[in-house]
Amino acid sequence: MDTIEKLTEIFKEFPGIGERQAKRFVYFLMAKNSDYAEGLSLLIKELRKDTMQCSQCFRFFVSPNLKKEKVCEICADKNIDSSTLMIVEKDSDLESINKSRVYNGKYFILGGLIPIIEKNTNKTVRINELIKKIPNEKSLKEIILAFSLNPQGNHTDFYIRNQLKDILKSSAIKISSLGRGLSTGTELEYSDNDTLKNALKNRQ
Amino acid sequence: MDTIEKLTEIFKEFPGIGERQAKRFVYFLMAKNSDYAEGLSLLIKELRKDTMQCSQCFRFFVSPNLKKEKVCEICADKNIDSSTLMIVEKDSDLESINKSRVYNGKYFILGGLIPIIEKNTNKTVRINELIKKIPNEKSLKEIILAFSLNPQGNHTDFYIRNQLKDILKSSAIKISSLGRGLSTGTELEYSDNDTLKNALKNRQ
Amino acid sequence: MDTIEKLTEIFKEFPGIGERQAKRFVYFLMAKNSDYAEGLSLLIKELRKDTMQCSQCFRFFVSPNLKKEKVCEICADKNIDSSTLMIVEKDSDLESINKSRVYNGKYFILGGLIPIIEKNTNKTVRINELIKKIPNEKSLKEIILAFSLNPQGNHTDFYIRNQLKDILKSSAIKISSLGRGLSTGTELEYSDNDTLKNALKNRQ
Amino acid sequence: MDTIEKLTEIFKEFPGIGERQAKRFVYFLMAKNSDYAEGLSLLIKELRKDTMQCSQCFRFFVSPNLKKEKVCEICADKNIDSSTLMIVEKDSDLESINKSRVYNGKYFILGGLIPIIEKNTNKTVRINELIKKIPNEKSLKEIILAFSLNPQGNHTDFYIRNQLKDILKSSAIKISSLGRGLSTGTELEYSDNDTLKNALKNRQ
Repeated sequence: MDTIEKLTEIFKEFPGIGERQAKRFVYFLMAKNSDYAEGLSLLIKELRKDTMQCSQCFRFFVSPNLKKEKVCEICADKNIDSSTLMIVEKDSDLESINKSRVYNGKYFILGGLIPIIEKNTNKTVRINELIKKIPNEKSLKEIILAFSLNPQGNHTDFYIRNQLKDILKSSAIKISSLGRGLSTGTELEYSDNDTLKNALKNRQ
Repeated sequence: MDTIEKLTEIFKEFPGIGERQAKRFVYFLMAKNSDYAEGLSLLIKELRKDTMQCSQCFRFFVSPNLKKEKVCEICADKNIDSSTLMIVEKDSDLESINKSRVYNGKYFILGGLIPIIEKNTNKTVRINELIKKIPNEKSLKEIILAFSLNPQGNHTDFYIRNQLKDILKSSAIKISSLGRGLSTGTELEYSDNDTLKNALKNRQ
Repeated sequence: MDTIEKLTEIFKEFPGIGERQAKRFVYFLMAKNSDYAEGLSLLIKELRKDTMQCSQCFRFFVSPNLKKEKVCEICADKNIDSSTLMIVEKDSDLESINKSRVYNGKYFILGGLIPIIEKNTNKTVRINELIKKIPNEKSLKEIILAFSLNPQGNHTDFYIRNQLKDILKSSAIKISSLGRGLSTGTELEYSDNDTLKNALKNRQ
Repeated sequence: MDTIEKLTEIFKEFPGIGERQAKRFVYFLMAKNSDYAEGLSLLIKELRKDTMQCSQCFRFFVSPNLKKEKVCEICADKNIDSSTLMIVEKDSDLESINKSRVYNGKYFILGGLIPIIEKNTNKTVRINELIKKIPNEKSLKEIILAFSLNPQGNHTDFYIRNQLKDILKSSAIKISSLGRGLSTGTELEYSDNDTLKNALKNRQ
């Protein structure tokens, strides 16, 4: 494999990128001037060097100062409401919710959804880390499960509630899930039965 | 205009049909055997002859027996729960909800949404008919507003609550709207702010 | 089946129309005023009554005057160049080409393409009618095969050339097919091998 | 701007990549292990270091051996037919045609199409390089213009024929353009007038 082929293989792993576009990326880089490619190369190296994973919420973040403690700026922020902990699937979910400014509490990134049929779940997602974390969160009052509304998201919601049952029984911590119903743009005429059922049940 | 052109013009009014497809319909009819076209012609005539508009919910329905009283089979059904009245925009919304079997109450078809900027609203939608109807519904306990989740739907929800304020003040009838939050298939990463806000507010 | 269901079934046969849209058509007709539906019903009846199939090119056409001879306005037009005969698959192909004004000769509608695997081809398309027609066309100099560029279109091109071989051998009539190469909007980067091959072979 | 933002800006320049996907790329790299990111960084650097532009056809190619002469493997190949020279817009066009194996001659990459309204064309595309090159190609018999079939492609075809008129007049070198007509998948019914016209004109 020459450099073009090797680089095509790597770009093919990028999210949403197939063979053809991966190759276009390579030709794009070949045609660009050296400065651009070198800048990109350097930035990617820097990104990895500066990237740390938060020891509290497990999100990846960039810290140019190489601070000792590995805590991201959200977890370190004293204005964050530490009485709620939102469990999300992945970094990009956290970014979207954080950017929307509708939530001001803590996060925990599970690192994936629970496949409906699988055995060794603990290896793929941070369920053990979550169980260990909860007793240490002294001001915690509510855990919010925030997963996409599809079969795997529903299964993950159910699974985590089950796993946390014992630990929450003896505490005052509530567990809740994001509300369901009509979302922006939902047209009644074309709604599925589940959405109609949830919208009707949760009417207010 | 010859017959082909006239018929094309009529098919162009069909929902979702443009010039090209309207013309294809005409050529399709020309190529089909006479029985098909005559059957279609007869059925359309019959449909209109047998179509009545329900005097209670205002939906269109087909009654081949030409009954005297103009009440549709839902409004006439004694098993329907007459303590709830769902206000919907149009016939196809009612059909979808009815088909989903998640709701067993009465309906009222408003006949449209309230445009955000317009004066003579009463002429386009059946707000007066709704106001007249409510005092006569002796067993009514809850009005459910069920509109699509878009600016016009929201405006209609707001408008009707306002119009019914006086009439409901002195009664025990509640007014509610379909719940909002995540709908089937919603991915957190790509959710808009309103959906996230509603999902968080309505968590449970 | 009631009228709504029967009419839905009929609309489902319209080209490009599925169950959901067929039903929307029915509700659309129910909500429209009687005049519209009756006008439609009448026009469909009239269309069929006035529709004739041209005895020369086999296209369907509308003749309100109920002329005795069953010849369409293209075949009857003396300004049409009768030295070329274009064989097309269906009425809508003829309409498109005729509308484009790039061709001024005669047409013959085959009534379908030849399936790649099928035995009794003569029953589905008018190959016998074509064979019978050619010796009677005294001024004919060229037959143009004009089929869509897909496997079935190619097979039909091949099949007709084969069927007409004997009849054309002893005559001066040429047989040709529409040219192949780049069509409007073709981007070289995304072209398939066949298109590139044809474009290269037919360069000029 | 921190590293995440800087890298997002750079990925946004990649062909077909918008803000959202650019950001996903960055988070993807943060979540990947260091080896992956470092490998990518290194390969991009290497790619640029090894990338040369062919002095004959102007395509970019990778040469790990840092050969002195800057000639790509197609131009250096003795089995290539040097009697034809195909002029293409860009590297990816050349790659597609080369991969299709329908052409075995030489290439020349123009470096862009000629905008329909622009003055200093010579600065954006290699028209001067082309004019200089032709007299030196001793075995050249045919120049093939191979541009995408859109207004700018047509204009470029016209422009180059005009620019080469004088130089070709006194020589035996032909100039041709890729053939036009139906391309794979073209349906007659939906064809535009130009495609029908070309298909009819180039029938065979």
